Amino acid sequence: MKILITNDDGVTSDGILTLAKRLSKEHEVVVVAPESEKSAVGHAITIHFPIWLKELSICSYAKVFSTTGTPADCVKLGIDELFRNPDLIISGINRGPNLGTDVIYSGTVSGAMEGSMSGYPAIAVSSADYANPNYESAAEFIAMFIKEFDFSSLPSFTTLNINVPALDYEKIKGWKFTRQSKRRWRDFFESRKDPFGRTYYWMMGEIIEDDEDPLADYKAVKEGYVSITPISVFLTNEDYLEKLLNNGF
Amino acid sequence: MKILITNDDGVTSDGILTLAKRLSKEHEVVVVAPESEKSAVGHAITIHFPIWLKELSICSYAKVFSTTGTPADCVKLGIDELFRNPDLIISGINRGPNLGTDVIYSGTVSGAMEGSMSGYPAIAVSSADYANPNYESAAEFIAMFIKEFDFSSLPSFTTLNINVPALDYEKIKGWKFTRQSKRRWRDFFESRKDPFGRTYYWMMGEIIEDDEDPLADYKAVKEGYVSITPISVFLTNEDYLEKLLNNGF
Repeated sequence: MKILITNDDGVTSDGILTLAKRLSKEHEVVVVAPESEKSAVGHAITIHFPIWLKELSICSYAKVFSTTGTPADCVKLGIDELFRNPDLIISGINRGPNLGTDVIYSGTVSGAMEGSMSGYPAIAVSSADYANPNYESAAEFIAMFIKEFDFSSLPSFTTLNINVPALDYEKIKGWKFTRQSKRRWRDFFESRKDPFGRTYYWMMGEIIEDDEDPLADYKAVKEGYVSITPISVFLTNEDYLEKLLNNGF
Repeated sequence: MKILITNDDGVTSDGILTLAKRLSKEHEVVVVAPESEKSAVGHAITIHFPIWLKELSICSYAKVFSTTGTPADCVKLGIDELFRNPDLIISGINRGPNLGTDVIYSGTVSGAMEGSMSGYPAIAVSSADYANPNYESAAEFIAMFIKEFDFSSLPSFTTLNINVPALDYEKIKGWKFTRQSKRRWRDFFESRKDPFGRTYYWMMGEIIEDDEDPLADYKAVKEGYVSITPISVFLTNEDYLEKLLNNGF
């Protein structure tokens, strides 16, 4: 396969290079990724500034380009200028999970969703432990999964959001198809004074995992399974729309 | 009502100030918005840098704060530090439409979605003509709509995405509940050389409006109606998940 890889942790991060190296054994791989970290950029694109693109000589197993843009920019530019008609677009391997409402904030997920919106099969992949990611096992899983999975079954505008537990590959129990849970962050801010006397704020947060759905994405990962959630770019709350159309509010 | 207003065009833009002024006639309004333009930031949040917050004296009808963060940051910080337990969060009035896949890229929509995720009723509002926005009519519509609409019917984690045609208020035909369409951009890049000989790219695009759904959001706006789409932060493609669970791929 021809595989375009991006991420949001930056082009030189271990996650993306481990994935590119592993997949290059069996596939043609091109990496197009942000030159610096773009975590939590959401689905940002660069429309009021231009984007610079540079080819790097940092590895022997893949062509690697960095850009000044976001993951979504990298995918757009990659498809348009560097690597037309890839068979698959992969974003990751992200450092840390993209579970529950993380999906909304994630640059990694947005890179993959951009691929889906452009008409290509696309995967976001994360190693689900920020402190101790296991990129080798996640890369091994993806190498296996993309051989097994029938991407022609994937509906248009739909991305697979894959979270791999940070276990050694042989300890992973298998994979489960899951639903994006309502796992979310409760935020609070710590205020400090800068050297000029101005108040500034650091965003802090604690995770809330109270979803009763047995298909909740984070539960699969906790049990040692890979979580695979098909996510769409169409956000309409269909049940509520139907109610509004039938009965008003 | 206590209303928190944010946007992505920046705190001094006409859209947000027109809305704040109009709503201040009947409500208590606090504005917390980015100090500079943050369009197309998607659902970005600021997690690796702190955020500065400043109170501005730019109008008599509302308290106004600017931050160095994104619209989502403004809502988090606004709720946590400035204006606890608002009755409603409004993001806008955006310059230009947020229809179809715009929703994915929009800082305006993400500001409102952040409000929904924090447990408050939330609206994103856009004047649907970038070149000739009509903020007065959009503000007038919102002032009327929030009196009429029963926000207790709104499901949790669901935002109303409202696009107002850029017509004078009396020319607007009414409102329609709609579905997020597959209206989207086909991108291409224009490459140039910078003064140092390096290639850089400007993202260009043309809009594709080929959705056959009679409930498509952009069709209502074209017909002169306000489009109101309930959107969720839960992205799971439920039909496809069911298929995967039942039959595999």
